[in-house]
Amino acid sequence: MTPARADASRPTIAVFDSGVGGLTVLRAIVERVPNADYLYFGDTARLPYGSKSRETIARYAIGAAQFLQQKGATLLVIGCNTASAMALYDVKGAVDIPVIGVIEPGADRAAEISQSREAVVIGTEATVAAHAYQRALARRGFATHEKACPLFVPLVEEGWTDHAVTEQVARIYLAEALKASSVHIDVLVLGCTHYPLLKNMLRRVLPANIAIVDSAETTAEAVVEELASNSRERKQGGTLSASAKGGGIEGPSFHFYVTDSADKFRRMAPIFLGREVENVEHVDLGG
Amino acid sequence: MTPARADASRPTIAVFDSGVGGLTVLRAIVERVPNADYLYFGDTARLPYGSKSRETIARYAIGAAQFLQQKGATLLVIGCNTASAMALYDVKGAVDIPVIGVIEPGADRAAEISQSREAVVIGTEATVAAHAYQRALARRGFATHEKACPLFVPLVEEGWTDHAVTEQVARIYLAEALKASSVHIDVLVLGCTHYPLLKNMLRRVLPANIAIVDSAETTAEAVVEELASNSRERKQGGTLSASAKGGGIEGPSFHFYVTDSADKFRRMAPIFLGREVENVEHVDLGG
Repeated sequence: MTPARADASRPTIAVFDSGVGGLTVLRAIVERVPNADYLYFGDTARLPYGSKSRETIARYAIGAAQFLQQKGATLLVIGCNTASAMALYDVKGAVDIPVIGVIEPGADRAAEISQSREAVVIGTEATVAAHAYQRALARRGFATHEKACPLFVPLVEEGWTDHAVTEQVARIYLAEALKASSVHIDVLVLGCTHYPLLKNMLRRVLPANIAIVDSAETTAEAVVEELASNSRERKQGGTLSASAKGGGIEGPSFHFYVTDSADKFRRMAPIFLGREVENVEHVDLGG
Repeated sequence: MTPARADASRPTIAVFDSGVGGLTVLRAIVERVPNADYLYFGDTARLPYGSKSRETIARYAIGAAQFLQQKGATLLVIGCNTASAMALYDVKGAVDIPVIGVIEPGADRAAEISQSREAVVIGTEATVAAHAYQRALARRGFATHEKACPLFVPLVEEGWTDHAVTEQVARIYLAEALKASSVHIDVLVLGCTHYPLLKNMLRRVLPANIAIVDSAETTAEAVVEELASNSRERKQGGTLSASAKGGGIEGPSFHFYVTDSADKFRRMAPIFLGREVENVEHVDLGG
């Protein structure tokens, strides 16, 4: 595929998450689309979404999406499995820009690599309770076992990504998941954006015949496809040169909005994004 | 001390917490004051407060306190260490009823039992960052070491109160805390309302010469004192019989308000309260 930046106008790509986890998705997108302006919204005053009801999550997600559209986003990524599971269609109905969630790209990737069509999905309680991956995978012919792993997020946020305690917790969770599911399982889907930081450790704990689907990476690939598709449409409409205001190779720009402490976000973000962050602005979207 | 119920009108005691943890405080109060009407407000849509800024916590706490006063509370307990640490005086300024936090009673108890005047306080990141216990204990002549234990709440909520992983995490946290503090430490203050459920396990892990202060119990004792003091004032003013509308022994009544799923609260509450709960009502206080 031709890189999106070669023939598309410079996009403004917004990533929305309940906290810092969506930064793993942002990182994966930036690696593939470096020539873009990035907005990130972390709803850190109201995290975690994982323990909240669908109604509450939909209300929060719509508020964030409309805010990001007002700030100039031309493409919105819901970089949060809970919000993608519970509020993707609410958000699509509330804004006028393309919206990409993290569920469908992960399910597509699982379908590409699985022979047995039997998968385990791990995620927060809410993602699992919403059965969004189960439904998305069922549409692709999968039998799926879902397993909530509520300790993984606090363990990652404690910085214990490669810690003996985290590995012990992973062994317990994965043993429970595999015991409760089919012996033919050949895919484990990381259904939470914190989990890519546990991928190396999970790889050690997991049987070698089970592949890992990292939904941050698969979502980033869906963004590249969306940008390429937009670019083709513009070419067909003959509007490329008019809209290609940012066709040069300038590298990414970043603007971060958080609903709680900007300082705390600045401290934690590098763990997830792999770079220091500037332009962190506190915003209050109310209820 | 004469039990409050023997000579006070039947009080309406409200306990406010960010979630279910304050139920350990409610339980300790009910054991001491069974003849009262209880209101409990769990701000479950916006938990945990532990990761939020002072401004956000104060706004949420004031909203909850005013709601509970409107519902008829005659005494308000902030059964949440983070909110007590960050918003006690904001709440006191926003309502007309007595307000009791969990910090001062715990500090009083530590002062009663400590010989060395050196203590360790464990709590959430926000409680520790606010240094509320450190200041409260310093006023009583203590040198204090504070240690954030962010994994304890999710471990308790996972139900792993007596689990090998939780004990391993406790050994790591307590070893770090004791290594960083004085050898003369003789008190450990449980600065989070989830931690009473870990008390038996912590007792095993902790050196025998270190006493544990359970702030749920000490707060309940402060409530008993406040009720007795009110009762004495009423007697002196000659208004006892007019206000003693509920002087009989009727046992407690309960009404629970939560900002997120009532079902989830109903499922988790018995772990903390030690009894099944009814009268759980969902409320939305907005931002």
